[in-house]
Amino acid sequence: MDNIKSYVQEHKERFIDELKELLKIPSVSADSAYSQDVINTAEAVKESLEKAGCDTVEICETPGYPIVYAEKTIDPNLPTVLVYGHYDVQPADPVDLWKSPPFEPVVKATEIHPEGAIFARGACDDKGQMYMHVKAMEYMVKNNVLPCNVKFMIEGEEEVGSPSLGWFVERNQKKLKNDVILISDTGMISNTQPSITTGLRGLSYVEVEVTGPNRDLHSGLYGGAVANPLNILAKMIAQLHDDNNHITIPGFYDKVEELSREERDEMAKAPFSLEDYKNALDIDDVYGEATYSTNERNSIRPTLDVNGMWGGYTGEGAKTVIASKAYAKISMRLVPDQDWEEITELFTKHFESIAPKGVKVKVTPHHGGQAYVTPIDSIGYRAAASAYNESFGIKPIPVRSGGSIPIVALFEKELKSKTVMMGFGLDSDAIHSPNEHFGIFNYLKGIETIPLFYKYFTEMSK
Amino acid sequence: MDNIKSYVQEHKERFIDELKELLKIPSVSADSAYSQDVINTAEAVKESLEKAGCDTVEICETPGYPIVYAEKTIDPNLPTVLVYGHYDVQPADPVDLWKSPPFEPVVKATEIHPEGAIFARGACDDKGQMYMHVKAMEYMVKNNVLPCNVKFMIEGEEEVGSPSLGWFVERNQKKLKNDVILISDTGMISNTQPSITTGLRGLSYVEVEVTGPNRDLHSGLYGGAVANPLNILAKMIAQLHDDNNHITIPGFYDKVEELSREERDEMAKAPFSLEDYKNALDIDDVYGEATYSTNERNSIRPTLDVNGMWGGYTGEGAKTVIASKAYAKISMRLVPDQDWEEITELFTKHFESIAPKGVKVKVTPHHGGQAYVTPIDSIGYRAAASAYNESFGIKPIPVRSGGSIPIVALFEKELKSKTVMMGFGLDSDAIHSPNEHFGIFNYLKGIETIPLFYKYFTEMSK
Repeated sequence: MDNIKSYVQEHKERFIDELKELLKIPSVSADSAYSQDVINTAEAVKESLEKAGCDTVEICETPGYPIVYAEKTIDPNLPTVLVYGHYDVQPADPVDLWKSPPFEPVVKATEIHPEGAIFARGACDDKGQMYMHVKAMEYMVKNNVLPCNVKFMIEGEEEVGSPSLGWFVERNQKKLKNDVILISDTGMISNTQPSITTGLRGLSYVEVEVTGPNRDLHSGLYGGAVANPLNILAKMIAQLHDDNNHITIPGFYDKVEELSREERDEMAKAPFSLEDYKNALDIDDVYGEATYSTNERNSIRPTLDVNGMWGGYTGEGAKTVIASKAYAKISMRLVPDQDWEEITELFTKHFESIAPKGVKVKVTPHHGGQAYVTPIDSIGYRAAASAYNESFGIKPIPVRSGGSIPIVALFEKELKSKTVMMGFGLDSDAIHSPNEHFGIFNYLKGIETIPLFYKYFTEMSK
Repeated sequence: MDNIKSYVQEHKERFIDELKELLKIPSVSADSAYSQDVINTAEAVKESLEKAGCDTVEICETPGYPIVYAEKTIDPNLPTVLVYGHYDVQPADPVDLWKSPPFEPVVKATEIHPEGAIFARGACDDKGQMYMHVKAMEYMVKNNVLPCNVKFMIEGEEEVGSPSLGWFVERNQKKLKNDVILISDTGMISNTQPSITTGLRGLSYVEVEVTGPNRDLHSGLYGGAVANPLNILAKMIAQLHDDNNHITIPGFYDKVEELSREERDEMAKAPFSLEDYKNALDIDDVYGEATYSTNERNSIRPTLDVNGMWGGYTGEGAKTVIASKAYAKISMRLVPDQDWEEITELFTKHFESIAPKGVKVKVTPHHGGQAYVTPIDSIGYRAAASAYNESFGIKPIPVRSGGSIPIVALFEKELKSKTVMMGFGLDSDAIHSPNEHFGIFNYLKGIETIPLFYKYFTEMSK
């Protein structure tokens, strides 16, 4: 595979242009206004996999958005890698904070990406990272160096909790049979220090609605005399953490895996500057659970965050109204051994129990997923480590991520295989935020590194 | 004035049609998208006052929306009544809760208004109540029964805190000279039990902004490690009340007028059914400051309510984001002797002081006004009581309202005259809410009652 670097250099303009075309389609799965765009994106991904040299490429219908499936089998006796990715993207709001339109990709240099980065919704999460695999496949097929069998499963509902993926996986266990699952939907420490994500947090995402009076009221005439849903919602949310920022839901921590002092000390060796972290976010201090460090708070500890909150008059000027209803979207990140369905139930029960008289509360679960840990002694992990080591010239560090890819636990359960998370994004790529981008360096380095994973995985599997 | 009833009966269809025309113009002062409509409404009010028989009618420019001024002087030795009202309306949101479009007035019967009510934004607050005065004027001029001099001052910024009215009043003290100020912008107990508002609460309206990280963040990667502005805002708002629902802002209650047990007992005699109140709002309990009754909570006690709150992802579906900013609009209703500017300062200082490290807080005052009490032994009050007594056949009850008309205190200060608040709306009219309406009975009864006030006020002033 000596010529992968030169192949990438030769074709890089085309690789960037092709990704830009894919990023132009606003495949926002959370908003039904974009449903045709989501479907069009599936079609575009299908075509790209055909061009890359896959033998079978299909659009598989599901109860939701379709899954693009592709495969190339060169020898049934060789190992099979199943690549998972997603072609849907997060909503682009707040759109007015984007410096260039979210669905009109542009390449601009940044401090961290002096060689340029592609700015667009989905550039990193996950169109860019998913498309690295398509281009790596193209390279291996065109140059006759594909060392094993490959399957692709690219879905369109990851950003809304993959509601149809379980349905699909359960019904297609034979088709999806594999020896390792490969996902690029995470990040790495920096462009000079690659890392491999070995842990993911689970997730429980709920929406709450607090209803007070049956209609909006004049705050002068009713203020102080009836429960104001917005004040009550604030009070209820405030009660979900205690003064040490522990979550107060009874039973919430019961199954939380407590890491040993040794493991925590080992984690603390990862390069990290609290000053740089604060400066990058322009905050004067960090904030979180007492007795845990920042890196522990966002990886090995469960959390509860309000992701959206609204009610009453939010327009220009002033309106003296007591809203009938107040809403919040709340997500909890979970750690290994916490069961997301159980946590969702505990949350619901607790939230209902703390509602004062005078309001009604409704909790609607959105979606969830289990936490996951990849063993670092697996062939998959070792093959990935060797691939990074060769392409970056430095050994990658295993890290636990705070993010969630709920389907990883599902894959283990249904397909009985381990997942390796080879992410090439950076924390600063602003995924889920305005001005999301993906470094050209990272994109091309990903295309370079992936074929090496195939090589090492096949060799180590012998 | 025996023929006022027959005059109203004869012209009632026209009176309703004219009001409907006025209600069709969406004069939302809080939203600059409607600025031309606000100006057009001033023009329509001017024309109506000319037709009603005023001698001088002017559109007076101000730094904001214009004030419509009109007068008819029949004898400088007779008393002068200054009518104040407003032609602007509250925003109509949430528009989807209206059963008919807010600016397409329709007459529909309701349980409380079997003879019909006009449904439209501003029907009661204040276009309908203001227009009663225009029609009462028409009657008195046409029938040669106007007993005194009259001035009209109808503004277009009441719903945004009357920012230009002080400016106008200070510059036109001579022009606005009067013996009593008459306002119909409040309510009465019921159609069978009229009441006169003798107290109004003051108001301090602020907007708060809590800023955490400098951009929206992925809640998986940062959740639990940085201060989430939405959680922090909830926590800060929750802290503004203690467990007894007392407001915790230091100094907030220092100047609050404490009513004696006797006064409170007197107030408690007003007809009131807690069961009916709860049923009408579909709430299982009331909620408010410990040791005070519902009617005390919304009249003689100061309050703090969130009128709007927003931040993060509020669209369809789920987005795992930590918002950079969270916002709330908060209003405090004040009672006599609390100074709104001082309270605004106390709030600001306190709110800033309770912000944890990791966030920045900005408090922006919107507007405010002082509380007011009308003496019930004044000529104005006695004349109004006699007028209601005659038109309704029952003596009106003096009540303290929880609402605010911030300019009443300003009038007393600048024009040295007392204000009488003759309101004809009902609590159930849904002012500031979807489906605002004004009973046909109330509208016509107002037109009947107002000329009687002029008669009694002139007689009692002799």
